[in-house]
Amino acid sequence: MEKGRILLATTSFQPQRWRELLSAEREVVLEPDGASDPSITYAVVWKQRPNLLASLPNLRVIFSIGAGVDHIFADPGRPDVPVVKVVADNLTQYMTEYVVWRVLDHHRQGVLFRAQQQKKAWRDPPQRPASDISVGIMGLGTLGRAAAKVLLSLGFAINGWSRTERPMPGVSTYAGDAGLIPFLNATDILVVLLPLTPRTQGIVNYSLLKELRRRNGLGGAVLINAGRGRLQKDADILRALEDGTLKEASLDVFEVEPLPKTSRLWGHPKIFITPHSAATSDPAHLAPIMLRQMDAYERGEALENLVDLKAGY
Amino acid sequence: MEKGRILLATTSFQPQRWRELLSAEREVVLEPDGASDPSITYAVVWKQRPNLLASLPNLRVIFSIGAGVDHIFADPGRPDVPVVKVVADNLTQYMTEYVVWRVLDHHRQGVLFRAQQQKKAWRDPPQRPASDISVGIMGLGTLGRAAAKVLLSLGFAINGWSRTERPMPGVSTYAGDAGLIPFLNATDILVVLLPLTPRTQGIVNYSLLKELRRRNGLGGAVLINAGRGRLQKDADILRALEDGTLKEASLDVFEVEPLPKTSRLWGHPKIFITPHSAATSDPAHLAPIMLRQMDAYERGEALENLVDLKAGY
Repeated sequence: MEKGRILLATTSFQPQRWRELLSAEREVVLEPDGASDPSITYAVVWKQRPNLLASLPNLRVIFSIGAGVDHIFADPGRPDVPVVKVVADNLTQYMTEYVVWRVLDHHRQGVLFRAQQQKKAWRDPPQRPASDISVGIMGLGTLGRAAAKVLLSLGFAINGWSRTERPMPGVSTYAGDAGLIPFLNATDILVVLLPLTPRTQGIVNYSLLKELRRRNGLGGAVLINAGRGRLQKDADILRALEDGTLKEASLDVFEVEPLPKTSRLWGHPKIFITPHSAATSDPAHLAPIMLRQMDAYERGEALENLVDLKAGY
Repeated sequence: MEKGRILLATTSFQPQRWRELLSAEREVVLEPDGASDPSITYAVVWKQRPNLLASLPNLRVIFSIGAGVDHIFADPGRPDVPVVKVVADNLTQYMTEYVVWRVLDHHRQGVLFRAQQQKKAWRDPPQRPASDISVGIMGLGTLGRAAAKVLLSLGFAINGWSRTERPMPGVSTYAGDAGLIPFLNATDILVVLLPLTPRTQGIVNYSLLKELRRRNGLGGAVLINAGRGRLQKDADILRALEDGTLKEASLDVFEVEPLPKTSRLWGHPKIFITPHSAATSDPAHLAPIMLRQMDAYERGEALENLVDLKAGY
């Protein structure tokens, strides 16, 4: 099989760096060029225009830039070809850093200490040991398991929830609809790392947050969402913070991104906001991985990190 | 040997909780009672009054509350009896949490993201991978090694410095005066966990900070001091922040504690302050450890976690 050409299509960031790196080894066509082009074998995409992929008569594989693939499944004209997701140590490490950082900032009372510093107040608040705090991770794939491992080494109790049972040493696992409420009832700090699918959309709503454990002295549960914005209901998070269901939240993702200036999330003193940067795809790291996968495919080898087209992740 | 009586002496916090816990098993005398009392066998102290211990004719062992013992060695009338320091998993875990939390907050640009949030700015800054950052730990005792282990699992490169060579797998170790400058020259984030002794007092000064590595794109080195306040020169840290030698600092300890309201450290936007609470001695956890040690001593067993009286830590 000869070296296939690549169509590069993104709507949410500048593709120059990707073009530079991919074109070191293959011909790269940048959208809007390339629509309907029969010479295109691969599409490398991030939030591509709807129906663009349907127009490519000889498309063989779709590669997603970034860990999520919901943007591909949202395309009504998605052709029935394999979809490869990015799985890179690099992305996993960045996500683990983010999750551990945010868990520790809530656990170690960063919000309180920053407020005390502003008032020049020297006060040592009571501090629970990590062993007394349960971190509940929704989504026990590569990212969830890597974060769980480091949190375990810090002494936290860890719960994990996934669609189907995924055992992990040292972690109390729960699965499916039947396991969701017991999982939440045993969780002080909720970390959301789920994929976005029709089943998970909007799952982080007020009634879910209401099920989180609330214990004396902790002042409410904590939410950390580093999965996808449309997993959550922004307004429900505000409501839960305002009535004390939640004590604090760290949000890397939002229903609408970039988060609109008018959103009340920006100014809330108990919310820590990052602009979808928990685990950024580094083109210098990821482009060579994709190029190696294309080479392997053309030698007749199996593709790795394939998305389950039925499950959508 | 009969059950020895305890003198409890502290000047910097309320001793009621300690008295309650220790007196469950032994007679406890609270300072100022007990001075010169021949029935006192043990002193449990934290920043005790100078020369108080010298007045006890039958004192056998001094127990320090907290991980540091410099307050005991600062006493000109310290009697020549064994000094036992607190070594508790609990304290080690708290310190590990603090160090990992602060390293991640600097590495993941917490200061920048909080400033962006205030301006409602959606901007994803470049982020280095942990493998590209060297964390240098001064002090490779129980606390330094525990923190190094978790930081290694997060992917950071780790340097360690100690008075005498202390090898550790995965860590580049340096020792003594000869190793100090090479250690600093290879360090981006400096974590200070040294004991306070006449040799280490004031070691974290401007000329030391000046030796830290400064690389393009990182905007200066980072200082984290969770050891003792008198290891550092507060004014030198301000100078290093102001001329760009340091980018940011996290300080849990200060030359004078409580940190005076007049200190310029309080209001500095690049300094994160906690009130000597990185690893707080939890009496409920520590008092039973001391009581077990007293029981063992009276059965003729050797004392554990003895301080080297010559080295002073």
